[in-house]
Amino acid sequence: MKFSAILLFVTIWMFVVYFPLAHMVWGIDGLMNGVWNASAKIHAIDFAGGTVVHMSSGWSALILCLILGKRLGFGKEPMPPHSMVLCMVGTGMLWVGWYGFNAGSAVGADVIAANAFMTTTMATAVASFTWGMIEYMIKGKPSILGFCSGAVAGLVVITPACGFVTANGAVIIGIVAGLVPFIFCYKVKNWFGYDDALDTFGVHAVGGTIGAFLTGVLARTSANANLAGDNMKAYVTNSVFQPLVWEQLKVIGLTLCLAIVGTTVIAFVVKAVNGLRVSEEVETVGLDLAEHGEEGYHAEA
Amino acid sequence: MKFSAILLFVTIWMFVVYFPLAHMVWGIDGLMNGVWNASAKIHAIDFAGGTVVHMSSGWSALILCLILGKRLGFGKEPMPPHSMVLCMVGTGMLWVGWYGFNAGSAVGADVIAANAFMTTTMATAVASFTWGMIEYMIKGKPSILGFCSGAVAGLVVITPACGFVTANGAVIIGIVAGLVPFIFCYKVKNWFGYDDALDTFGVHAVGGTIGAFLTGVLARTSANANLAGDNMKAYVTNSVFQPLVWEQLKVIGLTLCLAIVGTTVIAFVVKAVNGLRVSEEVETVGLDLAEHGEEGYHAEA
Amino acid sequence: MKFSAILLFVTIWMFVVYFPLAHMVWGIDGLMNGVWNASAKIHAIDFAGGTVVHMSSGWSALILCLILGKRLGFGKEPMPPHSMVLCMVGTGMLWVGWYGFNAGSAVGADVIAANAFMTTTMATAVASFTWGMIEYMIKGKPSILGFCSGAVAGLVVITPACGFVTANGAVIIGIVAGLVPFIFCYKVKNWFGYDDALDTFGVHAVGGTIGAFLTGVLARTSANANLAGDNMKAYVTNSVFQPLVWEQLKVIGLTLCLAIVGTTVIAFVVKAVNGLRVSEEVETVGLDLAEHGEEGYHAEA
Repeated sequence: MKFSAILLFVTIWMFVVYFPLAHMVWGIDGLMNGVWNASAKIHAIDFAGGTVVHMSSGWSALILCLILGKRLGFGKEPMPPHSMVLCMVGTGMLWVGWYGFNAGSAVGADVIAANAFMTTTMATAVASFTWGMIEYMIKGKPSILGFCSGAVAGLVVITPACGFVTANGAVIIGIVAGLVPFIFCYKVKNWFGYDDALDTFGVHAVGGTIGAFLTGVLARTSANANLAGDNMKAYVTNSVFQPLVWEQLKVIGLTLCLAIVGTTVIAFVVKAVNGLRVSEEVETVGLDLAEHGEEGYHAEA
Repeated sequence: MKFSAILLFVTIWMFVVYFPLAHMVWGIDGLMNGVWNASAKIHAIDFAGGTVVHMSSGWSALILCLILGKRLGFGKEPMPPHSMVLCMVGTGMLWVGWYGFNAGSAVGADVIAANAFMTTTMATAVASFTWGMIEYMIKGKPSILGFCSGAVAGLVVITPACGFVTANGAVIIGIVAGLVPFIFCYKVKNWFGYDDALDTFGVHAVGGTIGAFLTGVLARTSANANLAGDNMKAYVTNSVFQPLVWEQLKVIGLTLCLAIVGTTVIAFVVKAVNGLRVSEEVETVGLDLAEHGEEGYHAEA
Repeated sequence: MKFSAILLFVTIWMFVVYFPLAHMVWGIDGLMNGVWNASAKIHAIDFAGGTVVHMSSGWSALILCLILGKRLGFGKEPMPPHSMVLCMVGTGMLWVGWYGFNAGSAVGADVIAANAFMTTTMATAVASFTWGMIEYMIKGKPSILGFCSGAVAGLVVITPACGFVTANGAVIIGIVAGLVPFIFCYKVKNWFGYDDALDTFGVHAVGGTIGAFLTGVLARTSANANLAGDNMKAYVTNSVFQPLVWEQLKVIGLTLCLAIVGTTVIAFVVKAVNGLRVSEEVETVGLDLAEHGEEGYHAEA
């Protein structure tokens, strides 16, 4: 993708998809802000951004990667990850940084922040272990890439739920987060053949959607007293079929529509105005050299 | 070591060594929880895990590495650290993350947490400088590896003490932490010839033991008012020969026994049931490829 | 520079330049501590160390690099950054760690800390974007190096201001931080030809000086109620020409004098006593091998 196209796409996408969603979910008069807006049309909850951040970006990424098309040589040449070492370093930094927005979404150093911190740890640890063990059982070789993918999937799925579920809920989320995205990354991707280099769809879109759903199933008043407040008490009855599940499904549908329709329109606009793909020559030289004039390494320096 | 053996060993070890120790040290009715359990058999203290985390894992690592045996070619081929750059990056991440469990062990954003943060910084800075300067004096070449080893040693030794000692105590701990583990890593290891690739014994076992002891010597009521409470005031008299020293020695002995006996028994059980070492072929190919099906780098990708 | 010379220089420099400045700016009876010292000679402000940390070190670095002289081959051989990957990893770690000392300088989890956190984020994001976009406009190739340089420049410039300015002020600071240091790194450096390998002058000295000045221009009582207290209310009138600007200029002058004179004297003392530069042979072999006896990588290990 051209760098100019990325800049243009991101700028429009923020205003069309991200900002409206963020306002609807977290704005004090937001359409889907179940906890704080008594007159919300949908009484849904999203603690740290399962719909706003992960579903919206993940589904948009799938649409954009379909419109953009595959990399030259995709499916013909091997395209292994460049460096598992950097993958591991990055996953570690991501995991730690993620506490900032999961626990930090409590906007206070209180018991809800502590619970969000704990559930984030539980779900992520369980998901990374689950993903690795599935690889171990199926392929006989648990990998660092699997561990890292599982960790990110766990972080994604717990994100909307972290401030609303108990430790037991977090463990269930961790197991599902290690299992379902695994299937999407290793099986569904091959069936459909889209070129999703970073598994953004399998991990973020699928994970974000599962997370929004499981938040509905597993939210408990014992984890967050705000769920027992006037705005939410009709929806959170502390059972797996509580009315909140239906509200969460509405939010998932609305987020899906906005992300998919929004991205499709924006992508075709950008394509018409600016073009999306670099030329074959630029792609062969490499976008780092051709578009940014620099390389990752100068080993001799 | 086989990956299957690691999984099996770690699972049993947690239940046999780690969980009992953690309960004894931090459990409200723990055998060695001097501060909070009035009827503790041993009135010892361990702020963030010198015995529970570092002594237990460090001594277990030595036993396991002796039972496992040396790497093929150890002592015959040079085995330098793969990347000093990653060593430095990792030490930086470790140092920052360590604040989480040292200061975080105050379980509150209070003056004890602030003191733990400060003593952790002091001891670690002094220890990394000390280790480097010893290298400078002895070999003429202070190294990044020495700086990093000193930093980790400082972190390990201050861990049990961080919430109980003053800034002066932390400086003393830093000097000892740079000195004693250095001797173990550069001299004692060569005398005995065990293959401790990451200096886990020299840094974590020796460091954890020194830390548990120095916590007894240097704990002061001026650093933590809880030491002046009913449960501890008989033991912390603010002198270097205070009764707490003897309590800490008991804890050291108990931890040593549990770690050494526990690890020996578990290692032989795992060896009998599953085997510990990979075959010579697997070791020659490399455990990354043979056991996990992946490599650290794909330079061409 | 010889490692022995670095140790000697740093030790003396701390006592002559850093500690006096730190006391004058943050000491309760400090000469330039405008907020807390009623009888301060200069009623200046510096939240997290624009003068103390960045101006002092940045200007000292320029003087020292002029006295030390250029690297062998400088200007004749290309000297590209060794690894853009590490540059990016390091910038990420720096950015996150920087919150510790910017927001942490509030010495409390209060509204001033939250404001400092927010302004740090705004200024850094805007500065990194600005620097990259300038490259895009001038060279057609926005680079990671430019993004990283802009981020660090943003962090440096917001540092003295972070606890005193509003979100709008932070955006202005971000734009200036992306613009002025860029000019110094890409134009001024070439005009004068000094060998500043890490752009310490362009980013830290220039950035720190701009930051100290803009703190005077943009400090607002709405961002920090302490500015409306007895000691500062005469200086902070919430206009761009408020009396504080003149106080900040005095501080800039004093810091410049202390850093430049101090570094010059110390550098010549160290040169006379110990020598500054390594021999040509050592420089050709590389200081890592010759002075520290180790290399960054052992690819085969």
